[in-house]
Amino acid sequence: MGGYENGDSPAAAPFAGEDGVILGVDGGTTNTVCVCLPAAMPPPESPAAVPVLARVVAGCSNRNSVGESAALETLEQVMAQALAMANSDRSAVRAVCLGVSGINHPSDQQRMLEWIRDLFPSNTKFYVENDAVAALASGTMGKLHGCVLIAGTGCIAYGVTEDGKVARAAGAGPVLGDWGSGYGIAAQALTAVIKAHDGRGPQTSLTGDILEKLELSSPDEIIGWTYADPSWARIAALVPVVVSSAEDGDEVANKILHDSVQELADTVIAVVRRLRLCGEDGNDKFPLVLVGGVLEGNKKWDISGEVIKCISKVFPGTYPIWPEVEPAIGAALLAWNHHRKGLKLENGS
Amino acid sequence: MGGYENGDSPAAAPFAGEDGVILGVDGGTTNTVCVCLPAAMPPPESPAAVPVLARVVAGCSNRNSVGESAALETLEQVMAQALAMANSDRSAVRAVCLGVSGINHPSDQQRMLEWIRDLFPSNTKFYVENDAVAALASGTMGKLHGCVLIAGTGCIAYGVTEDGKVARAAGAGPVLGDWGSGYGIAAQALTAVIKAHDGRGPQTSLTGDILEKLELSSPDEIIGWTYADPSWARIAALVPVVVSSAEDGDEVANKILHDSVQELADTVIAVVRRLRLCGEDGNDKFPLVLVGGVLEGNKKWDISGEVIKCISKVFPGTYPIWPEVEPAIGAALLAWNHHRKGLKLENGS
Repeated sequence: MGGYENGDSPAAAPFAGEDGVILGVDGGTTNTVCVCLPAAMPPPESPAAVPVLARVVAGCSNRNSVGESAALETLEQVMAQALAMANSDRSAVRAVCLGVSGINHPSDQQRMLEWIRDLFPSNTKFYVENDAVAALASGTMGKLHGCVLIAGTGCIAYGVTEDGKVARAAGAGPVLGDWGSGYGIAAQALTAVIKAHDGRGPQTSLTGDILEKLELSSPDEIIGWTYADPSWARIAALVPVVVSSAEDGDEVANKILHDSVQELADTVIAVVRRLRLCGEDGNDKFPLVLVGGVLEGNKKWDISGEVIKCISKVFPGTYPIWPEVEPAIGAALLAWNHHRKGLKLENGS
Repeated sequence: MGGYENGDSPAAAPFAGEDGVILGVDGGTTNTVCVCLPAAMPPPESPAAVPVLARVVAGCSNRNSVGESAALETLEQVMAQALAMANSDRSAVRAVCLGVSGINHPSDQQRMLEWIRDLFPSNTKFYVENDAVAALASGTMGKLHGCVLIAGTGCIAYGVTEDGKVARAAGAGPVLGDWGSGYGIAAQALTAVIKAHDGRGPQTSLTGDILEKLELSSPDEIIGWTYADPSWARIAALVPVVVSSAEDGDEVANKILHDSVQELADTVIAVVRRLRLCGEDGNDKFPLVLVGGVLEGNKKWDISGEVIKCISKVFPGTYPIWPEVEPAIGAALLAWNHHRKGLKLENGS
């Protein structure tokens, strides 16, 4: 991931100054990251070459979790701190992209646009999007085109066309069947352990592996463990155990992973089909950005590789990208792209 | 259901008096019911003929929900009120059966036995069981033998052999895959609506039927509705909509119900197999008591009928029973049976 940790002193910022700055924000349920880029930077030759002036991390900015006023306060503070760290201020901001979780409807977007307009000069450009858009842009280096698949604790597929149409699939949470998510994979594994114990399902090495991980002595105790804490992330943290059981040849664990691969692939296929990202003949190349713990890692059991295989059978133009920069930089690059196009138009070039 | 509502004046109680009384308690998460029977009553000729001296309803007595001290206080009060209503008192109690949800381990049972012994005379007999046992006894008129399948908001199969061995399956809650429960059926239906909306699943009339029931205008709004209130019962309340869509021929709703039937049947089959309730040759007759909203009703789409068909293919001796008395009476009959056997032994008959 690119960017600097809080308090690091980034290299000199040769592009800032009177040309102004760009802000990119990735606002999530766990934390919120804001980065500041120089507005006049040249197109970066590689992800590592993005000249980050400042990077600041704050807490949750999902208004569904903490309420609207707390979410907006977090966003305002994280941007103010990033500007201060970059030796800049609000008057220098040329464009801002907020990619914030919990932005699901045009009305959410509109409310946040009205709020952010009052914080910056009147000629600043604003882009308010779902945080999935920031993740997509982190793979496409700011270009809004393609599909992103995020599979962490939850999962969602989100796509955008070059003419601005959007579509999403999944992202509905555990009750509504996001079975390819980390939560979904782990919940299926826990269920398999209970079923084996009850005599309703085949024996599986998941039993020993999960009990060892949770330091429990019997599958009976899993029921109490599960309901002692309603956190989905706590359940999802068992995914590495499932992967490792599958790598060791356990059939139940392998079936869970194969089913989840199919769920994740179906999610992407639904979005690509609705947006015709694959073109009229179904063979156009389009970027598929892969983000989140379930899709990371160079494990023997290659979940993201299998997902891509499934999708490529339907859409041979699928071009997978594992982002080398974080979503906040994706958001900033998105704003920078728009800013640069605006300048070109003004200059008649 | 037999029994009298609070405040009703039951018919004269010809069998009570110096022969004493029996208490049966069904302690659940929603409410707790206590009934009082005359210890010297003859074996009832029919469920309707059980001479209930008193019936009292109180709140939750599941210690996992309200804590141990509140649960015990509720149990103590509901028994005291039933005795007062029956014009009796603690000294007249010959036997008590508590069937309480949340009693899952022998240690839970032991703690509650120690507590209840101090409330009654030293010669009183006590039976502390899971509430599933009270439901079983409500179908077998107090005899502890067979399997009960409860499918309401949650689901569980619980079996007991004549020599006292017990086994259970499912009852592990939604995270751990109780897919045949009311919650499970409704969650699958909601998932199907989301998948159809995303383009990941077939179109289904569940969409219109569920949106109408919830007074929502778009499947998008289901996500917010689902997570606005974590109550499982609120989700499970959609089961009648799923049944009605299936009856109208919707294939998706039919598949959900058929899958759930198989899950429920597998749960019973696991318990019957572990306890050998079907005898060595697999053909012995055994009672299967069916309880809970999912298994009730004379709907066209007959869930309990289909479950019995599945189980009977494996165990032809399955003898289904829909209880005509409530679980509290089942608990009281269980205690009464034991009391009567004790008297016979004392009398040498």
